[in-house]
Amino acid sequence: VNAPRVLITAPISVRWGDMDALGHVNNSVFATYLEEARLRWFAGIPGGWRDEHASPVLAAQTINFRMPIVWPEELVITLTLARVGNSSLAMDYVMTARDTPSRRYADGNVVMVWTGPDGRPVALPTHLRAAAEAS
Amino acid sequence: VNAPRVLITAPISVRWGDMDALGHVNNSVFATYLEEARLRWFAGIPGGWRDEHASPVLAAQTINFRMPIVWPEELVITLTLARVGNSSLAMDYVMTARDTPSRRYADGNVVMVWTGPDGRPVALPTHLRAAAEAS
Amino acid sequence: VNAPRVLITAPISVRWGDMDALGHVNNSVFATYLEEARLRWFAGIPGGWRDEHASPVLAAQTINFRMPIVWPEELVITLTLARVGNSSLAMDYVMTARDTPSRRYADGNVVMVWTGPDGRPVALPTHLRAAAEAS
Amino acid sequence: VNAPRVLITAPISVRWGDMDALGHVNNSVFATYLEEARLRWFAGIPGGWRDEHASPVLAAQTINFRMPIVWPEELVITLTLARVGNSSLAMDYVMTARDTPSRRYADGNVVMVWTGPDGRPVALPTHLRAAAEAS
Repeated sequence: VNAPRVLITAPISVRWGDMDALGHVNNSVFATYLEEARLRWFAGIPGGWRDEHASPVLAAQTINFRMPIVWPEELVITLTLARVGNSSLAMDYVMTARDTPSRRYADGNVVMVWTGPDGRPVALPTHLRAAAEAS
Repeated sequence: VNAPRVLITAPISVRWGDMDALGHVNNSVFATYLEEARLRWFAGIPGGWRDEHASPVLAAQTINFRMPIVWPEELVITLTLARVGNSSLAMDYVMTARDTPSRRYADGNVVMVWTGPDGRPVALPTHLRAAAEAS
Repeated sequence: VNAPRVLITAPISVRWGDMDALGHVNNSVFATYLEEARLRWFAGIPGGWRDEHASPVLAAQTINFRMPIVWPEELVITLTLARVGNSSLAMDYVMTARDTPSRRYADGNVVMVWTGPDGRPVALPTHLRAAAEAS
Repeated sequence: VNAPRVLITAPISVRWGDMDALGHVNNSVFATYLEEARLRWFAGIPGGWRDEHASPVLAAQTINFRMPIVWPEELVITLTLARVGNSSLAMDYVMTARDTPSRRYADGNVVMVWTGPDGRPVALPTHLRAAAEAS
């Protein structure tokens, strides 16, 4: 069995303002952290991640919250490839403390679908498929 | 078969600032909308939703993104009870346009766990269980 | 002396997630509330607020924080015209509780400048000037 | 004439999600960046920045927006002491690109007031005054 392909390992700095009135990072901000990891991976793909023909939308996301995050903290998000579909990429991720990898804050998965100007799924651009499978 | 118990039907106004650089509401803000619905339900529960003995944390959340949301828009979130556990409440939700209920923007589910000061699950407070089951 | 021209009176619902770890609405969110008021005024202007020739940017904003805001709360923002420049609109604003207008949460001013595709100031579009002065 | 006392030089990573529908960092997020710089300065003060007797609130903030910020970008915020009052600290700041200090994105000032449990100003704690003046 092969290990999952790692798309990116992205460091993220928690901001004080990411915390909510309960004193830990708000659940919605976990999604922002994951988005940042995806976008940094996208930004490094030769050929780009969107154009006038095909742009990704989030189809579904699941977040399992394992531990509360308290500022200040430095995180690492590891994004791995779960499945390449005709129009979509499914990814798994793990969010940990940067200096204590065994401290897992969250994990889960996300599905992105590439759509055309009319909002309907289109074939995943070839260079994106290649970038995902080459990781 | 019984219809699911509706915990709350919460109206939400989209803010222009909820949109991201792709011109529609950012995925993380969907989680904020859902949180607002939960908190409004909580706020109406006699006896309150948290005290020094038991406070809820989000254990897991899944969001299925059905359509992009563009400002200005008025939403309604319908939160229904999925399951009452020993320490947890599982809820389903649907997010639609307020004036066009057939326009479904998102749906999914969320699990909240009540924990004690040490972060371990505690028994769901009786009045919360009653409020959930009476909805 | 004339009373200042009111551009818009915009209601805003505070969200639980607007609060930070100190338990009241985070200072950055005041700016989001003000933006929402401006954008709602913009949205009602015949001819629109931006096109390929002229798009507004925020040049400066001052916020005087008068009282902390705690969820749940309903606000009203009153935006008034302070000055119409060649390329700019200066506005004053007051943020109060909707049901207790004497409860002033914040006030201040903001300057917006219309710029062209090269980022340099352009003449304020005629219909925007008219809309501001007709308020 | 002395140079202003630098309280902290704080690096900040722009997140993709900080951008709004106009494709550059939303104005409200500038306030979040400034807050992060203040909080990191606070976090390094022996004796802490708040306790049950005295906690700071933002009294006023002015932001001059000099250039739009586009992701990806690394920023530096330089926070300097403007004035130490009986209950308050006034600070000036400059926000620049980390690798091109001449690229100034914003500047302005902020006033924080330390208040007691009743919300009224209290004397600035001695160790905070010392920390500000020793910078």
